[in-house]
This record gives sequence, C-alpha cells and structure tokens, in this order.
Amino acid sequence: MKPKKPFFPAPKTIKTITIIGNTGNVSWHLQRVLTQKKITHKCISSRGKIDEKDLVADLVIIAVSDSAVVEIAKKLNIKGSILVHTSGSLDMNILKPYAQNYGVIYPLQTLSKNMEINYSELPICVEANTKPAFLTLMNFLPKISKRIFEVSSSKRLKLHLAAVFCSNFTNHLIGIAKEILQKEDIDTSILRPLIMQTIDKAMQNNPFDVQTGPAVREDYAVMDKHIALLLDDEKEIYQVLSSKIINRKP
Amino acid sequence: MKPKKPFFPAPKTIKTITIIGNTGNVSWHLQRVLTQKKITHKCISSRGKIDEKDLVADLVIIAVSDSAVVEIAKKLNIKGSILVHTSGSLDMNILKPYAQNYGVIYPLQTLSKNMEINYSELPICVEANTKPAFLTLMNFLPKISKRIFEVSSSKRLKLHLAAVFCSNFTNHLIGIAKEILQKEDIDTSILRPLIMQTIDKAMQNNPFDVQTGPAVREDYAVMDKHIALLLDDEKEIYQVLSSKIINRKP
Repeated sequence: MKPKKPFFPAPKTIKTITIIGNTGNVSWHLQRVLTQKKITHKCISSRGKIDEKDLVADLVIIAVSDSAVVEIAKKLNIKGSILVHTSGSLDMNILKPYAQNYGVIYPLQTLSKNMEINYSELPICVEANTKPAFLTLMNFLPKISKRIFEVSSSKRLKLHLAAVFCSNFTNHLIGIAKEILQKEDIDTSILRPLIMQTIDKAMQNNPFDVQTGPAVREDYAVMDKHIALLLDDEKEIYQVLSSKIINRKP
Repeated sequence: MKPKKPFFPAPKTIKTITIIGNTGNVSWHLQRVLTQKKITHKCISSRGKIDEKDLVADLVIIAVSDSAVVEIAKKLNIKGSILVHTSGSLDMNILKPYAQNYGVIYPLQTLSKNMEINYSELPICVEANTKPAFLTLMNFLPKISKRIFEVSSSKRLKLHLAAVFCSNFTNHLIGIAKEILQKEDIDTSILRPLIMQTIDKAMQNNPFDVQTGPAVREDYAVMDKHIALLLDDEKEIYQVLSSKIINRKP
C-alpha cells in the first residue's frame, strides 16, 4: 500500500524557524525571544500567497488567531518541517491533513505587545503527533524556557479555560477596581499588597476555604451599599459573583 | 450651655489597647501584630456584659462584623479612650453617640486567621473626629505599618468596594481555575506565572487596554467550547464577564 504523502522524517534539531502571522501578540513575543536567543528565524505575513521558499525551515509556527489557523495551514506545502500552532483551544489534529509531523506549542501566559516577559519562566505546553517530532520539540524548547510541559489537546483546552478565569477575568476586575479609585483620585497602588496577598493565599490554600468579604459573610447591608455605587455593568458582575461566592460557602 | 458629656481629652500616646471581639479575622491579626510588637493589649468577647475595667485603655477597638458594631458600641461607657471600628464600609460617625474621640482604622487587606501577613506593608486607612485623636492615631500606627493613609468615610467605602473586585472576586475566580485543573490532575502551580504577569500588567497599565483572551477577540468559537465544559454557576460567571469585557473593548 502506497502512503498518501511521501515520507519526510522530523528534523532532529531545530535550527531554523518560520513564523506565519506577523501581527498578533504571540507572534510578537516569539520573534522577540528568538531574536534574544539568537535563533535563526523569519516571520512572514499570513495574508495572500505564501512563498514555498519561506517554508524551508525545521519548524513552521502558525501564530494567528484560532479561527484562521486551518485556512493558513491549507495554503502551506510542508515537506520536512514540523508544523505547529500556538492555540490554547484548537486540537492538535486540525493540522493532520497538512504535515507529516505536527504539533502544538502553547505558551500559558497573557501576552501583550511591548510588555516585558521573563521567557525563562514561561510555561509552554507541548504536544506532537510523532515521537521524533515530540523529542525534537522537547530538545529545542528549553532554549526558550525552563518550564516545558507535555500536555494533550484536551488538557490544554482545560488549561486555557482556567487561564480565562484567573487571567482574563481577573484583569477585567482589576480594571474596575482601579477605575473606582481613579474617580476618587486615590492612588491605585494602594491595592497592590491586597492583590498580592489574595494571590498568595489563593495559591497556597483552597480559595473557597479562605474566601473573605461581604458575600461570604452574607452581609447584605454592605453589599447593598456597594451595589448602589456601581454602574449597571459592574452591578451585574457584583451580583453574579457575590451569589456564586455564597453558593460555594464551605 | 452645658455640654452633654463631660470633656475627656484624647490620650496623647497609645500605650494600652482593648480589642472588643475575639472571634473574627481582623481581631485575630490585631492580637497577633500587637503581641509581635509587644504593645500592651487585651482582647475581650463582644458577647454579654462588658466590664468597665476592661475599657480602661488609651484605644478601644471594636473588631466585630459590621452589623454588630453599633450594638456593641451601645454597651460601652467610654471615658478617655479613643474608640474606633475597623470596618471598610461603616461611616465613622456611627460611633459619635458613644465617645468623645472616635475614628476608624481600616486595614486594606484580606485577613484570614493563621495566614502570614507582612504587617509592615499593610495599608491602614485612618480617620478620626478630632485633630488630637487623629494625631494620636497617626503617631501610634507607624508602630504597626509604614503604610498609613488618611482616608475619609466616603473614600474608604470606595476602597472597600474596589477591594471586593480585586480581592474577593479574584479569589473566587482563582478557585474555579484551580478546580478545573484539579479535575484533570494538573498541578495548579502552572498558573502562577500567568497570574503574576496578569497582576503586573494590570497594575502598570490600564487593564482595559491590555485585555487578552477570547472575549476581547470576540472569538465566539472558543467561548462556546469553554462554556460547554463548565458547570452552570461557572457558565453564568463566564458569560457575564465575557460580555462585560466585550462592552469595555478599547
């Protein structure tokens, strides 16, 4: 039986990298860390036709928004490269039709352009479809970070979901907190010790056991005072989260 | 015109302290820091009759839940002491009928029993009804912390409200994030760099400008995948916060 595609073994070491997508946050940080580490790479636009000579690399990284990954992969003629995407929520196997060796490198971090990141502490979740491709990635990635984890597609989706709660949502709540103080001309840095202690305590304990505040005390007089001070969108957040805290009382 | 109450000047220095309320988190930490700093204090129960001799102190601190403060104050016969409460949301003047010199010392921190706190960095908000009482408190409190702020009752309420968003609510969200990982047997410490970066970025920027994640990208495919994995209470939080993030897009 003839194989559908000619056999291309996974490269044993990664010396050259092509990043597809040059506008996103992940792409920005990939370019930055590879430049810092003096690893040969190029970054090309995902728009329009992709030149075959740009794909001659040991590793090709699709670093675009989730909804565009498959559409980009379709345009590629991958031969010997390992093809990966960087998404938290896309299954590895969406790349199956487009390469012999493929996988995922998902950085578990909130990445914004122009923000300092300590890359050596950046957790990176890795998955690959073949043992050689996996070993090649596991051999390469420690050049970027010392926190490399093998994570399956289904566990990666859960990690991504957890990240939404403890990062994306938390960021929004801090935004509201800072805005409340800014309207009163109170220096928002007064919140820092509180936030740091909250994180430390939540990480070292079961957060539901160490919950503080008016909701867990079911102090409705305080909650009513608070709600009266809020805008409608903030009110809804306050009410929903307070009711969930009450539901989760130990 | 005869004054209603005989005149008791505020003590110039605080050498002895009585804490009323011996079961709460604030009381626990007050006792702890005063012991550490070798400041003479006693802590008495707020239940039942309060013995007058227990109130012979330069500072009397009511450290009970908000709803009990007035009820306790009514039982006190305060003479020369400064009387304070420790609440984030109660106006200072609720103590007016019960003492000549009164005020508030509100620690802006999430306090749980048996948790380490770096008291010297603890922000404490201070208010008093008379200049002498205020100066006495401002002279005393640096023995506990180097972060002492004069904060009016109305600003304190806003600080308390901001604290609910960035501490109480954040704690609950981290609880959900950890639980999602625990169900998958994933070590929750993988989230720490993400959370730390989220906080740093949110404190150094306008959080609404550096928001990341599927909601701000309006990536409904990812959000649908996430919601399908959640329990009902978590789903509601996810949906409400995602919609608010979309509403606040820069």
